[in-house]
Amino acid sequence: MRTVDWDYEHQQVRMIDQRLLPGKFEVVSFEDYHQVADAIRKMVVRGAPAIGASAAFGMALAAQTLPADGITELRSSLGIAAEYLKAARPTAINLTWAVERILRVVNRTEIESIPEMQTAVLDQAQRIADEDVEINQRMAEHGAGLIEDNETIIHHCNTGALATVDWGTALGVIRMAHEQGKSPHVLVDETRPRLQGARLTAWELDQYGISYDLITDNAAGYFLQSGDVDRVLVGADRVAANGDVANKIGTYMLALAAKDNQVPFFAVVPTSTVDLALSHGDQIPIEERDPVEVLGIEVQGERVAPNGASARNPAFDVTPNHLITGIVTENGVVYPPFEDNLYQVVPEI
Amino acid sequence: MRTVDWDYEHQQVRMIDQRLLPGKFEVVSFEDYHQVADAIRKMVVRGAPAIGASAAFGMALAAQTLPADGITELRSSLGIAAEYLKAARPTAINLTWAVERILRVVNRTEIESIPEMQTAVLDQAQRIADEDVEINQRMAEHGAGLIEDNETIIHHCNTGALATVDWGTALGVIRMAHEQGKSPHVLVDETRPRLQGARLTAWELDQYGISYDLITDNAAGYFLQSGDVDRVLVGADRVAANGDVANKIGTYMLALAAKDNQVPFFAVVPTSTVDLALSHGDQIPIEERDPVEVLGIEVQGERVAPNGASARNPAFDVTPNHLITGIVTENGVVYPPFEDNLYQVVPEI
Repeated sequence: MRTVDWDYEHQQVRMIDQRLLPGKFEVVSFEDYHQVADAIRKMVVRGAPAIGASAAFGMALAAQTLPADGITELRSSLGIAAEYLKAARPTAINLTWAVERILRVVNRTEIESIPEMQTAVLDQAQRIADEDVEINQRMAEHGAGLIEDNETIIHHCNTGALATVDWGTALGVIRMAHEQGKSPHVLVDETRPRLQGARLTAWELDQYGISYDLITDNAAGYFLQSGDVDRVLVGADRVAANGDVANKIGTYMLALAAKDNQVPFFAVVPTSTVDLALSHGDQIPIEERDPVEVLGIEVQGERVAPNGASARNPAFDVTPNHLITGIVTENGVVYPPFEDNLYQVVPEI
Repeated sequence: MRTVDWDYEHQQVRMIDQRLLPGKFEVVSFEDYHQVADAIRKMVVRGAPAIGASAAFGMALAAQTLPADGITELRSSLGIAAEYLKAARPTAINLTWAVERILRVVNRTEIESIPEMQTAVLDQAQRIADEDVEINQRMAEHGAGLIEDNETIIHHCNTGALATVDWGTALGVIRMAHEQGKSPHVLVDETRPRLQGARLTAWELDQYGISYDLITDNAAGYFLQSGDVDRVLVGADRVAANGDVANKIGTYMLALAAKDNQVPFFAVVPTSTVDLALSHGDQIPIEERDPVEVLGIEVQGERVAPNGASARNPAFDVTPNHLITGIVTENGVVYPPFEDNLYQVVPEI
């Protein structure tokens, strides 16, 4: 099944509970948009494209369940629901992008009745989800064109089917290269604190039959120094107009080590992740999550640090554009100068 | 108590079982040198200076327990015990350094009886342990001279009392600065895979009343970019003649991020950690440990990765000298060019 989906029989949003993988595969259903926002916040669903689609379906739930005496009242309530969903997580722009795409439908004046609105919003949410899969496959084709036979690739966090509606971004490129018979080998950064690499990426690679070794995030530099790594591939949560990339915490140090060893470093992102409204990466809001994720292995509730220990937990960092070899999008691979070339692949709204 | 010590009443080596901290403070005793080697291998005791002293006490155990018909046979058996102890872990040169210092006593021709040998070896082991504390305090004085009031310092792994016989190297500097009233604040890298930062450094800082926040290793780059970090302090397991530093895995990426943000990066090491026989860091043997440490949280036996996942687990990496601002030793702070300046502080054997 898809990572996030609409259940037409029960009029619910369904998603895989990613907090339980790889130990347990469980699907959860929601009938209230507040629950969807909560699932995004608590990382039942994560990955920039996946939370975008989830929020779009959250808007479809809102359209179906919000009490309204007429279309004007529903429009106004949907505006409030949109703000609520957008506030669930701050860094990934796909969340805002998807909700605003729904809002443009909500504000179409030709929609005159509540049932019309419900249908229109759900249709648009479904289109966002379907397009995500198709866009990922186009990115994968472009990205796989870069990959040679038998490459060793370092990958950070999870950017696979689980991070998207289906297929994946950076991991989608690796999957496509594998399907093309190029036999990639992946060094999987475990990605503390939430271990998306150890839990989700390793699990996906097992499913696809792709060869990998799990490593600590600390070990990436060692392998880059060894000369055995051909490429680093990551996703992103937001890309500024100049090509600065906000992505999972640790990406910046990984990019420094790639650069120091002349290993190509690519970000793989749908154009919905590019935020042309921000000129530089330092304008991207960085979420700081609950310290409990650092104080232990939050997934299993196992505590490591002493009682009373305090912690800081920024969830993302910004990799400056000069460390990035190229950005793979569904409309082609973009190279520096990103400030000149990136806007050419991003469709106008 | 000291991290490792000789129990004169029972003629045993005692050490704190560091695998159990911070949950449990337990002291283990050994009466056979093979047990000491095993404790080093399994990281009951860890930290370059601490394993040096442990191996020296292991030699004292060997002198007392190895069956021998005469002094010649004992000398020969101690040579074999020395090789066994040196092989316990490959990267930290202090292990070899301490065992060879004991061997120079073993080979003194003026020692003519087994009891004389037993006393001489134990005395030398005790001297190594006592000197370690005194050397650490001298390093701490030199290092604390660099620290300004209210500095925020990133620290990797554990380099405190637990990594030495007592007091500590990099953490010893922070401790001294704290005692001098300089109010340092420490960002504690948790240090995957074995979490020496989260478990041991956080625990020690609690004891000393030093302010800290635990962070994931991934987050160090974010904080260095923020401009809020004044200095990075690490220990080392071996320093080559040119100043290349082998230290806990992740140190290299941390040093890259410090350099990229013009934050001073210092290694704090006793001269027993400097290996003038190696011209460059790439000659330092890097231990690769059991993948199980990466596949889960080994300390509590909690598994994270899917069943069947494979992993790689290099325990150290090499930070090239051009990323290092200075090296603090008991004989003063050494600055580049390290190839010219380092040998001047290392005493001749």
